[in-house]
Amino acid sequence: MSRDSFDAVEVIVAKRDGHRLSDAQIDWVIDAYTRGDVAEEQMSALTMAILLNGMDRAEIARWTAAMIASGERMSFAHLSRPTADKHSTGGVGDKITLPLAPLVAVFGVAVPQLSGRGLGHTGGTLDKLESIPGWRAALTNDEMMRQLEDVGAVICQAGSGLAPADRKLYALRDVTGTVEAIPLIASSIMSKKIAEGTGALVLDVKVGSGAFMKDLDRAAELARTMVELGTDAGVSTVALLTDMDVPLGLTAGNALEVRESVEVLAGGGPADVVELTVALAREMLAAAGKPDVDVEAALQDGRAMDAWRAMITAQGGDPDAELPVANETEQVVAESDGVLTTLDAYAVGIAAWRLGAGRARKEDPVQAGAGVEIHARPGDTVRAGQPLLTLHTDTPERFGRAREALASGVVVGAPGTTVTRRPLVIDRIG
Amino acid sequence: MSRDSFDAVEVIVAKRDGHRLSDAQIDWVIDAYTRGDVAEEQMSALTMAILLNGMDRAEIARWTAAMIASGERMSFAHLSRPTADKHSTGGVGDKITLPLAPLVAVFGVAVPQLSGRGLGHTGGTLDKLESIPGWRAALTNDEMMRQLEDVGAVICQAGSGLAPADRKLYALRDVTGTVEAIPLIASSIMSKKIAEGTGALVLDVKVGSGAFMKDLDRAAELARTMVELGTDAGVSTVALLTDMDVPLGLTAGNALEVRESVEVLAGGGPADVVELTVALAREMLAAAGKPDVDVEAALQDGRAMDAWRAMITAQGGDPDAELPVANETEQVVAESDGVLTTLDAYAVGIAAWRLGAGRARKEDPVQAGAGVEIHARPGDTVRAGQPLLTLHTDTPERFGRAREALASGVVVGAPGTTVTRRPLVIDRIG
Repeated sequence: MSRDSFDAVEVIVAKRDGHRLSDAQIDWVIDAYTRGDVAEEQMSALTMAILLNGMDRAEIARWTAAMIASGERMSFAHLSRPTADKHSTGGVGDKITLPLAPLVAVFGVAVPQLSGRGLGHTGGTLDKLESIPGWRAALTNDEMMRQLEDVGAVICQAGSGLAPADRKLYALRDVTGTVEAIPLIASSIMSKKIAEGTGALVLDVKVGSGAFMKDLDRAAELARTMVELGTDAGVSTVALLTDMDVPLGLTAGNALEVRESVEVLAGGGPADVVELTVALAREMLAAAGKPDVDVEAALQDGRAMDAWRAMITAQGGDPDAELPVANETEQVVAESDGVLTTLDAYAVGIAAWRLGAGRARKEDPVQAGAGVEIHARPGDTVRAGQPLLTLHTDTPERFGRAREALASGVVVGAPGTTVTRRPLVIDRIG
Repeated sequence: MSRDSFDAVEVIVAKRDGHRLSDAQIDWVIDAYTRGDVAEEQMSALTMAILLNGMDRAEIARWTAAMIASGERMSFAHLSRPTADKHSTGGVGDKITLPLAPLVAVFGVAVPQLSGRGLGHTGGTLDKLESIPGWRAALTNDEMMRQLEDVGAVICQAGSGLAPADRKLYALRDVTGTVEAIPLIASSIMSKKIAEGTGALVLDVKVGSGAFMKDLDRAAELARTMVELGTDAGVSTVALLTDMDVPLGLTAGNALEVRESVEVLAGGGPADVVELTVALAREMLAAAGKPDVDVEAALQDGRAMDAWRAMITAQGGDPDAELPVANETEQVVAESDGVLTTLDAYAVGIAAWRLGAGRARKEDPVQAGAGVEIHARPGDTVRAGQPLLTLHTDTPERFGRAREALASGVVVGAPGTTVTRRPLVIDRIG
């Protein structure tokens, strides 16, 4: 890190006027912001200037490095196995981490999955797992390392020591309209993943109505930027661009998604969840040096399920416990005969959130049993009165607003209508 | 004012993405910011987006109206005379307000000159007048109105009730690299001038090294924007674009400038100060409905001086008192025979500031006697060893840094060099 000192206004003005920031300016501004010497309103002006005027590849790399340097770095170098991690940019019904981590662990690759909670319409992996009685998200570093060595997979809460600059900056961007800057999104994700010390990383960049990125070109740019950052930092990194116009699988909600994940680990489950789990597992294993293993077999023969049970048990969870069920359900039915043409991921995500599966503020609790169960997929022929969705909640006064969210998101077209969808895995960048 | 309520992020994102802000959005964001419901970091992101994406004429007008609505409005409607005010965007040696206000008052037009203090390299009118023993800047509204009726001119501190949104926003822009946005500069100046309630307004928009605007096109754009705002608000408004590559007159510093102003009021003084004072007086009088008066005569026959003495006396000042003199002086001399080609306004402004005439922070005191006295102007033939400047300060340890500021700002060229300057009044916009 440089020891130069700058004036915050000088750094802001440089980016405002379309200039590159120097390495020393970037090092200084991230460090000074983390220490509180650059004020929130100054960083806010700088991030807006970055959003509008951009950063080049070298600036983004330095920005990411400075965020990593703001905190501690972990290392898995002492483990007896290689490591591989996955990051999804977030989608509706995206429970892939749950079957994926134990599946990859089956093949001797350790999966240190540091995860977060849900905010807004996409669910959080920790919220989902917390619907399993006894399971705990917070592990010490020692506990995590021991579990990686013994079980091979851990899904736990990220410690607050990793990239503290990113945590502070993310909270600021959230309230200042600067979340959407690709350089800042990429550096936010990658600073934490690089600081975490994984050897290989597979990125699942979602694109579509239920994703943060609605637009394929921008999603591809984000994926490329992150792959470059990972590669430059010595992490074997690849990205899949995957569809998020329709929810993944047939459930959105915490316990509902755990139940579906267990079906996949038992060799069943919805085809799209299985397809994406397998595709990501192959990428992670290939990146960790194991390209030629039979991933599907491990889902069929119970090895992935064994790894799941070991992983849940190691964190205090009871894999055989009954999962919570919501007190109340209501159905959304087809209003006419025809073909389901639209099942909008964003609408389903908002509905699940409003039913109690997600939170509006960080401090809010979530309902383990709340969410949406899906009975028909786009392209399915349906009859008037046939259930399309089941809504689950403990608080039935929430049904109304959930139905409002779904109003234009569930569309039945004329009988015989053809529905075409793009492939689930749209592209691979690596 | 609209009673709609918005989300701050929604307003920021609209401007970030290049959209117009609606009247209701502007009303809301200014009001909510003034009340503290929109946070500093949110307003900072919005102002950066405005700087980079601009605002159209209607948006700027609404923004200005919302800032006016954040505080009280004054009215001079009950006065027996018409009113005219002047605003300068700030320059080095710009003491024009001092002779101008009494000069205009001579002709029965009241001049309510609400002024500020200096910050940085340009001096403040109140700082200059406070070098007169006994003179006080703070008047009540009643005192100000009585003086306008009795004397016809008042130069005093602006009350804190006018456009409080602007005061808060200006402090924010100052630390976030967003001072330079023309829509924000124009609305900042004009919100205060319109709220003040003047009937006519003449703007002196400085352009050149010692001005805020270095570039003629940008200065003209600022002038046009302000004239449009004033006109739209029913204030008879005109702007002069005037040169600020060279200091105005032969002094920069508080008591030094008062002394020079008194020379002008006595019918003497430097030609450029007289020229600009007369030009601005003519514009103010014309805008207030008195286009055909003999302005120069009032400087020559003592009427302007009488009005000055009455104005100073009314605010507790002694117009006959000795003005403070700095304890120490040093001369800057020509290093060779030749022609003075450069006397850079910015360099002289910084030197005067460093000698103690200005302040670095709002709380700092100023030295009444400190500053720079000018003995040669660009185009003058000079001899080696001839004094070009006299530096004045009470604190001789400041001479060194003042000389550093002047190093490249005072240039003697080869004998016979021709120096061409643009006219003092470059353009008129109205």
